[in-house]
Amino acid sequence: MFTDISKDDFKIKKQNKSMKFQAPKGTRDLFPEDAEKLQKIIEIIRSIFEKYGFRELITPSFESFELLSKKSGEAIRNEIYYFKDKSERELGLRFELTASFARILASNPNLSKPFKRFEIGKVWRYDNPQAMRWREFWQADIDIAGSASPLADVECLATVCECLEKLGFKDFFIRLNNRKLLQSVFKNFVEANAVADVFRTIDKLDKIGEEGVSNELKKKGINPKKVLEFIKISGTNQEIINKLKNFECEGLDEIIQALDYAKGFGIDKKIKLDLSLVRGLEYYTGLVYEVFLGADLSCGGGGRYDKLVESLGGNPTPMTGISLGLERILELMKNKKMFEEDNKTKVFVANVNEKVKNEAIKIAQELRKEGINCQTDLMSRSLSKQLEYADNMEIPYVLIVGEKEVKSKKFKLKDMKKKTEKEIPITKIKEKLR
Amino acid sequence: MFTDISKDDFKIKKQNKSMKFQAPKGTRDLFPEDAEKLQKIIEIIRSIFEKYGFRELITPSFESFELLSKKSGEAIRNEIYYFKDKSERELGLRFELTASFARILASNPNLSKPFKRFEIGKVWRYDNPQAMRWREFWQADIDIAGSASPLADVECLATVCECLEKLGFKDFFIRLNNRKLLQSVFKNFVEANAVADVFRTIDKLDKIGEEGVSNELKKKGINPKKVLEFIKISGTNQEIINKLKNFECEGLDEIIQALDYAKGFGIDKKIKLDLSLVRGLEYYTGLVYEVFLGADLSCGGGGRYDKLVESLGGNPTPMTGISLGLERILELMKNKKMFEEDNKTKVFVANVNEKVKNEAIKIAQELRKEGINCQTDLMSRSLSKQLEYADNMEIPYVLIVGEKEVKSKKFKLKDMKKKTEKEIPITKIKEKLR
Repeated sequence: MFTDISKDDFKIKKQNKSMKFQAPKGTRDLFPEDAEKLQKIIEIIRSIFEKYGFRELITPSFESFELLSKKSGEAIRNEIYYFKDKSERELGLRFELTASFARILASNPNLSKPFKRFEIGKVWRYDNPQAMRWREFWQADIDIAGSASPLADVECLATVCECLEKLGFKDFFIRLNNRKLLQSVFKNFVEANAVADVFRTIDKLDKIGEEGVSNELKKKGINPKKVLEFIKISGTNQEIINKLKNFECEGLDEIIQALDYAKGFGIDKKIKLDLSLVRGLEYYTGLVYEVFLGADLSCGGGGRYDKLVESLGGNPTPMTGISLGLERILELMKNKKMFEEDNKTKVFVANVNEKVKNEAIKIAQELRKEGINCQTDLMSRSLSKQLEYADNMEIPYVLIVGEKEVKSKKFKLKDMKKKTEKEIPITKIKEKLR
Repeated sequence: MFTDISKDDFKIKKQNKSMKFQAPKGTRDLFPEDAEKLQKIIEIIRSIFEKYGFRELITPSFESFELLSKKSGEAIRNEIYYFKDKSERELGLRFELTASFARILASNPNLSKPFKRFEIGKVWRYDNPQAMRWREFWQADIDIAGSASPLADVECLATVCECLEKLGFKDFFIRLNNRKLLQSVFKNFVEANAVADVFRTIDKLDKIGEEGVSNELKKKGINPKKVLEFIKISGTNQEIINKLKNFECEGLDEIIQALDYAKGFGIDKKIKLDLSLVRGLEYYTGLVYEVFLGADLSCGGGGRYDKLVESLGGNPTPMTGISLGLERILELMKNKKMFEEDNKTKVFVANVNEKVKNEAIKIAQELRKEGINCQTDLMSRSLSKQLEYADNMEIPYVLIVGEKEVKSKKFKLKDMKKKTEKEIPITKIKEKLR
């Protein structure tokens, strides 16, 4: 009975590349099987963000180009979707979520502190599309405004740890460093104004390796030896801290404090000091962190940026925060089959003929009143075609409505997986499916 | 004790207009008190959409200008955010959600039918900003692809009715008409190619009134008398149907069928035939509908558009759907105080001094494990300042952690509303707050 429609006909197909109209380059459609998984991730992350007292903000998807470039420099123009509105205002699609938050802080000096906010939404970058990198993608961002304490940083990390745990990940960790520490030590090796340059080079370590970093530093006239020696200091967190005590460095106290608070949150085992971590963006001023799933898949990061709000004309406001990239989390969870299969539609209410169609609709409405998700036939299909449809859509139950059944209030309920059926009173059906 | 910080300091302030950096013209920030309400609306709407078997799609926020203009004509360029990417591709921010859905249908001819999808997201229009009209706003859209039956239209209407009921509205109704009906009747009064022009004029009835419509028709060389007489036919649905039987018109059967299915869904009392309803967009081909809250606040609408997918190069595919405007729903619900006050943070875990800070964090983590949303101090504030903060943030409970309490595992729990406190074991506190 279930053979004359191919199962594949019901599967959602990937976009046909020969067609004229497609999603714009670098973007994609999320079909239900992925969209529902992404929403599940968002729902879990939102609930954890709220568990830690972060509150939601929704900001515009585009901002003035001046704001976007204030944070990241004029060069950002080439890396974002830049456009003018009809009054020649220069705008850009947001490429992350913190610029808007900093704008709000700058223009609302009276907001009570700490102001803990989250935002979950799409962002856009004009990158070259590649595996797991899209021009349109989703970020979940938490930030705390107003607290200069490493406790604020660690609370962000604890929040992210609980998100990842709740999503089902076990094998994740966070690399932690402090830019102040690097800055104070590097000043002894290189000219003060070259430190930012050294940061930019170190940031490429994962990409170009130690030799690459060494060569790039040499080209810039910097002796790489001491820099590399320093960032390669390794061991347990305590061992690294002990070694650092031999250096005259700033910001070590913040790291020690952060690790102490991490014990309070129960996440100290998840944090790994890593002196080679600098994070790309220029505006970080202190602690920086990066989140890894497994050994090497980065799924987010952040840090402290205490000068940004002031640079936008606001009051000095200590800020820290972290962003998660949802595409990577989604893809990894799909690959590892971490999602429970769960069909959103619980039951298909079939009608044996057109005469009882409205009766089937009424039954469906009764079930919906009980909170049971259901569908009815919209195509005037025969009963057997309706069953095929339900089977191919993997709807777990079919309830069959005929004239006799309407009178007796007893209906055949087919279990589509077990291929069994039973005649049951409607009240029992409601209990069973609720 | 609660006096030295002004309550106003904790309120979220409106953007300060004197500040340099603001949300771009026509857009706005949704602060937590609004953002959380909007999310609540979205959560309810999503659950009802899924109850009726609609599945979520997430499509790009911009589309090729060619696609957008295919649906709505070249003139749309002036009404949307139009831009080019760095490869000179012509793009536009989406101004509604159906064009992307039609694109997917056109390029995936094998998708099983009916394909019932919803999408909830931001859309953008380059309108002049005015009350309750923003250049960036939210829509919730359901569409059914593949069914030509009025049952599909009515299922969309029933879904929307349940959304509005679940949101708490009682006083809403849906105006229903059929363009086929107008088309077939108007052909007797005016030239066939002038019918679209008549539609455009009638669509302004609410704005320019009967006299305005009359004058505009006259200017176009059309005798307004018969047109106006026809669209003013009034009475109960049955009375209107009886009167229509005197005309030679098409599509009356679809209306009769729709009203019959509406009885199955139990929404027949919510539907009001209105022969003056045409809906603005040109691509509607049959039944059209508009949703009203109270007497005259339109919060959404839609209709059948059976030719769109074909015009994009796809197979002929009957389509129908409806969009809700979420800003209007949000504003009305706020005005009518339809939201329950509910603070996302249940308890503030205060520490009596810095020595027990990590103990407070541990208690907070214990509570979070039980699913209780809580916050701790991030500002190294004194106990009394922590209490002020909790009070001003309207957090309902404060749990106080001191050295004695950590040892006894009994903590003071302050009820901030009743201004009472009790010493209770932590296990009881968990039960109470869960």
